[in-house]
Amino acid sequence: MATIFTKIIKGEIPSYKVAENDKFYAFLDINPLAKGHTLVVPKQEVDYIFDLEPEILSEMMVFAQKIAKGIDKISACKRVGIAVVGLEVPHAHIHLIPISGGNDIDFSKPKLSLTPEEMSETAKKIQEYL
Amino acid sequence: MATIFTKIIKGEIPSYKVAENDKFYAFLDINPLAKGHTLVVPKQEVDYIFDLEPEILSEMMVFAQKIAKGIDKISACKRVGIAVVGLEVPHAHIHLIPISGGNDIDFSKPKLSLTPEEMSETAKKIQEYL
Repeated sequence: MATIFTKIIKGEIPSYKVAENDKFYAFLDINPLAKGHTLVVPKQEVDYIFDLEPEILSEMMVFAQKIAKGIDKISACKRVGIAVVGLEVPHAHIHLIPISGGNDIDFSKPKLSLTPEEMSETAKKIQEYL
Repeated sequence: MATIFTKIIKGEIPSYKVAENDKFYAFLDINPLAKGHTLVVPKQEVDYIFDLEPEILSEMMVFAQKIAKGIDKISACKRVGIAVVGLEVPHAHIHLIPISGGNDIDFSKPKLSLTPEEMSETAKKIQEYL
């Protein structure tokens, strides 16, 4: 069965898309830790990020780097942090999270509630800087 | 002034080295969230990971992937997670952290206290799988 991320990539489940190429897809996390919190996923369904072929992992990081530079431009935070946990969805994904402090990457924290308009506007703003 | 990581790379400050090549250095985090928690740093002193040249960032991830596979072998945890925060030391670094649950990446958690013997043994065991 397709993972939820594959359904998002195929457009079967809606998402606030930030960027896409032939191998990767980036979209806003629906339960963001900060405004601009983005997920980067490979189109290939691989559960564990370190099981990706080294070439794909490399390309994924460079793709994520471009997105992070866009997030940097629209965010008031100090920089974009990276987290990969991946125990909930069996499809490798990189969290790009705007941070200002050393403890800002903490998935037990309450998530932001943004309106659909705010999410859509955030995605569009990031896109403008890519 | 050289960063603490540059001093570690140069051997001016001791570390439990896991691996090294011409561009990167990996060593055990002295305040680990889990046994096997490793830091991967570029030898080039760059503060923000996304300011690394894309080629270096790619190589750094592939280097980290090899280390992660070694950590996987010696750890009872489900997999190795990734975190990049980087607000304390102005020298880019990737945390490779053995995790078993979705909230295991949380730098506000109490750190493990391992003896120098346990640290040394952990580093050696990871090396055996590289």
